[in-house]
Amino acid sequence: MKTNPGRFFEDYRLGETIAHAVPRTVSGGERALYHALYPARHALYSSDAFAQSCGLPASPLDDLAAFHTVFGKTVPDISLNAVANLGYAEGRWLLPVYPGDTLRSQSTVIGLKQNSNGQSGVVYVRTQGLNQRDAVVLDYVRWVMVKKNRLDAPAPEAVVPDLAKVVSPDRLVVPQGLDFTRYDFTLAGEPHRWGDYAVGEQIDHVDGVTIEEAEHMLATRLWQNTAKVHFDATNRADGKRLIYGGHVISMARALSFNGLANAQIIVALNGGAHANPCFAGDTVRAWSEVLDKAPTAAPGVGAIRLRLVATKQGAAPFALKGADGKYAPEVLLDLDYWALMPI
Amino acid sequence: MKTNPGRFFEDYRLGETIAHAVPRTVSGGERALYHALYPARHALYSSDAFAQSCGLPASPLDDLAAFHTVFGKTVPDISLNAVANLGYAEGRWLLPVYPGDTLRSQSTVIGLKQNSNGQSGVVYVRTQGLNQRDAVVLDYVRWVMVKKNRLDAPAPEAVVPDLAKVVSPDRLVVPQGLDFTRYDFTLAGEPHRWGDYAVGEQIDHVDGVTIEEAEHMLATRLWQNTAKVHFDATNRADGKRLIYGGHVISMARALSFNGLANAQIIVALNGGAHANPCFAGDTVRAWSEVLDKAPTAAPGVGAIRLRLVATKQGAAPFALKGADGKYAPEVLLDLDYWALMPI
Amino acid sequence: MKTNPGRFFEDYRLGETIAHAVPRTVSGGERALYHALYPARHALYSSDAFAQSCGLPASPLDDLAAFHTVFGKTVPDISLNAVANLGYAEGRWLLPVYPGDTLRSQSTVIGLKQNSNGQSGVVYVRTQGLNQRDAVVLDYVRWVMVKKNRLDAPAPEAVVPDLAKVVSPDRLVVPQGLDFTRYDFTLAGEPHRWGDYAVGEQIDHVDGVTIEEAEHMLATRLWQNTAKVHFDATNRADGKRLIYGGHVISMARALSFNGLANAQIIVALNGGAHANPCFAGDTVRAWSEVLDKAPTAAPGVGAIRLRLVATKQGAAPFALKGADGKYAPEVLLDLDYWALMPI
Repeated sequence: MKTNPGRFFEDYRLGETIAHAVPRTVSGGERALYHALYPARHALYSSDAFAQSCGLPASPLDDLAAFHTVFGKTVPDISLNAVANLGYAEGRWLLPVYPGDTLRSQSTVIGLKQNSNGQSGVVYVRTQGLNQRDAVVLDYVRWVMVKKNRLDAPAPEAVVPDLAKVVSPDRLVVPQGLDFTRYDFTLAGEPHRWGDYAVGEQIDHVDGVTIEEAEHMLATRLWQNTAKVHFDATNRADGKRLIYGGHVISMARALSFNGLANAQIIVALNGGAHANPCFAGDTVRAWSEVLDKAPTAAPGVGAIRLRLVATKQGAAPFALKGADGKYAPEVLLDLDYWALMPI
Repeated sequence: MKTNPGRFFEDYRLGETIAHAVPRTVSGGERALYHALYPARHALYSSDAFAQSCGLPASPLDDLAAFHTVFGKTVPDISLNAVANLGYAEGRWLLPVYPGDTLRSQSTVIGLKQNSNGQSGVVYVRTQGLNQRDAVVLDYVRWVMVKKNRLDAPAPEAVVPDLAKVVSPDRLVVPQGLDFTRYDFTLAGEPHRWGDYAVGEQIDHVDGVTIEEAEHMLATRLWQNTAKVHFDATNRADGKRLIYGGHVISMARALSFNGLANAQIIVALNGGAHANPCFAGDTVRAWSEVLDKAPTAAPGVGAIRLRLVATKQGAAPFALKGADGKYAPEVLLDLDYWALMPI
Repeated sequence: MKTNPGRFFEDYRLGETIAHAVPRTVSGGERALYHALYPARHALYSSDAFAQSCGLPASPLDDLAAFHTVFGKTVPDISLNAVANLGYAEGRWLLPVYPGDTLRSQSTVIGLKQNSNGQSGVVYVRTQGLNQRDAVVLDYVRWVMVKKNRLDAPAPEAVVPDLAKVVSPDRLVVPQGLDFTRYDFTLAGEPHRWGDYAVGEQIDHVDGVTIEEAEHMLATRLWQNTAKVHFDATNRADGKRLIYGGHVISMARALSFNGLANAQIIVALNGGAHANPCFAGDTVRAWSEVLDKAPTAAPGVGAIRLRLVATKQGAAPFALKGADGKYAPEVLLDLDYWALMPI
């Protein structure tokens, strides 16, 4: 067999590190495509001049584009035979990614737990994205449910990692040189500063985008994520293609500009759930809730913890969960992240 | 309210200047996407070597891509609550835009006139696109009909600016260094020079392109134009998304290569009407008429004034207006511009 | 007539060289778009660092993107009135193309043969792609059936060129400096080296991609190929748009990563047939067969000759031809090429 069958649950060993294939050099092309695929308008990621006025050498690649690039490389080794993408934790962006940088990924297995049915198990990995200087640009944990191939393979000792519910504010990494003391709120698009947001505040981001098959496939391929379900209409009985969850994350984040234009930089991913699948034809909207706030040591820079919820057509205002504690069927995404804002 | 409700008619003040948000650095990525979105083949915008043989330092960003970038920034402040985009005038391209340049926009209110129904009014703005050196790259007037929010707000004194019907040839700005004396007609794709076109001549550009939802949304997002109507299929009772008028302009201009391959550089926008809406599934064609010609002071460079008409399926040859003076229903666009050609 | 009616069979003269229009400078934008349009993952074309570790100055533009760019320029002169694209031969990639390079094309008529019905004829051209230093980057022969316009035009003397069935291994050009002795199989994605492939071996590349109208049009425009049939839904009675054959070539080649991840560089095109048309909605899969192997003089580099077959939904495993010697209706492409692999 020359082709890659993907790994099954019994193929993972606790503590092993998997070097993922196909490093990627990013350029202005990836940035332009990101802006064509999502209504992205955060000024720091749109303008070199704006980024320079904030102390950075140039406008970096969007934090989520860096995430998708790192994530995409893990798919052939981690989630080709995954039944479900169960969660994220302890995600931190450690270095901005600039055009010309080359990214690669590696993952360490930090937990394994076979399901009681004996047919699948949960694999926990800590994934790192590294640049051409072997510096870590991104570090996060995700866990997926993976099928077993040999059902008689013995169950490994169950190890479930102890993961932080939230990245502690003192562990957030502010990009070197970042300085928001001369931040231009007019060019950024909104006057609201860190001090204007209250914990518990909810923001409806108003705008909606109807998704097309061509768009989510362009996006998913750009990140070299080749999971069959996103591309092959013959793969499901109903002829639908399941949209990469990261496409919904980027769409919701871009929509959140309207009300959170100054939440410029994503520095941590506390957690996230892809509550329901998204398909072409769905119209995605988003709302946010301020979960926490924290100061940082950088001049003029505050951290804000946000819940970002993506919904589809038919959702009630600020839809989240029903009385049974389950996500409403119109909720697509429930994401928890830290961003940096001018204070 | 953290989100932007947009401005209503009563929110504009004569003489005020609005600095629009989200500056944008362009790269080779924007150029590649422009060529993927439109059948653009004008050699000066395709090849650095060709542009250099014409005296420019490199191949600039397509003039219409520069226009869309500048225009897109104005949408949140000017046309979010617009009922109609009524017209353009006095548009001039003043400097080429090159990869690496950062564009921003500002608009000055130069006219206001409340409609007799008291529910809306016309806002006239002069918009300027500026680069990272604060040099104006583009300057144009447009006017839009905008809803009132507070119907009891007093009508402003009616001021309708006196706008030139046509940009006078002596006001056209030829890019510094442009020299068409060694112009390579073979590489450009057609032998027809400025002297070969006669005022009154009409050209059917032959080719048609059927429009897809994914394409017009990619284009419109690339210019960071986030008007809801272009993206949200739930926004209209018939589930359609209205295509950004600029998408039709670029499509028609690109199609006009076939017959006007040497009308290389757009230097002025005299006027334009989006005669009828365009929707996905429409097949766009174009025809042109030579309206005027003028010499320029630059070596080998002549100016040609062109009417560019975009039509959709079912249009009669050279369709424009009916006996009633109204645009035929298959006419999408009627644009009047000056371009530069080798003499 | 200012527009280009295209050439008809009687317009070609044996031995004439046609300089094709619209040179093109490529950038990181073209590379990013190529990766968004196809599931391309060959590491040498994804990562500057990987390419440098193989002795190249940077990651080149994908070989097929270079091919499409050169090919696209020939369409207005060679195949605008073509009835069928009949074949390719003697294709060789002679120099890598890097971001910043400007490509142009020229074709020499090397054969002409009028069909017995007197209504069309076969035109054979040798096409060369040249860069801004006038160095040939690509050289190939293709032949097309072209309509006659003036049926009474005399038939030219029939000349059918003697074309090699296969590019001889000693004529393959290995990029200068290429060295696979320190090749990183882990980063490349598969462990299989040149020595692991046996002549006659067949590989099913497993994955499928369902094609969308927006995608093939974006791709075809990017290469400035403006053949009407790809864009104009009103051009056929059934309202379909015929997909550019090169789109299927690139899709199949990208899919072949799964099993041929180390067949990094395409150096020769021995032949190819677009067996059946492809339309939006088709799901493309691919399989390969090892046809031959040959050593090269470059360190660590072997050449492998591959048949690449693209199929659509409904195809039998390793579908190719029926008992009648005709391609099965689900076969889209039968391509024969040489690639370079680490030994």
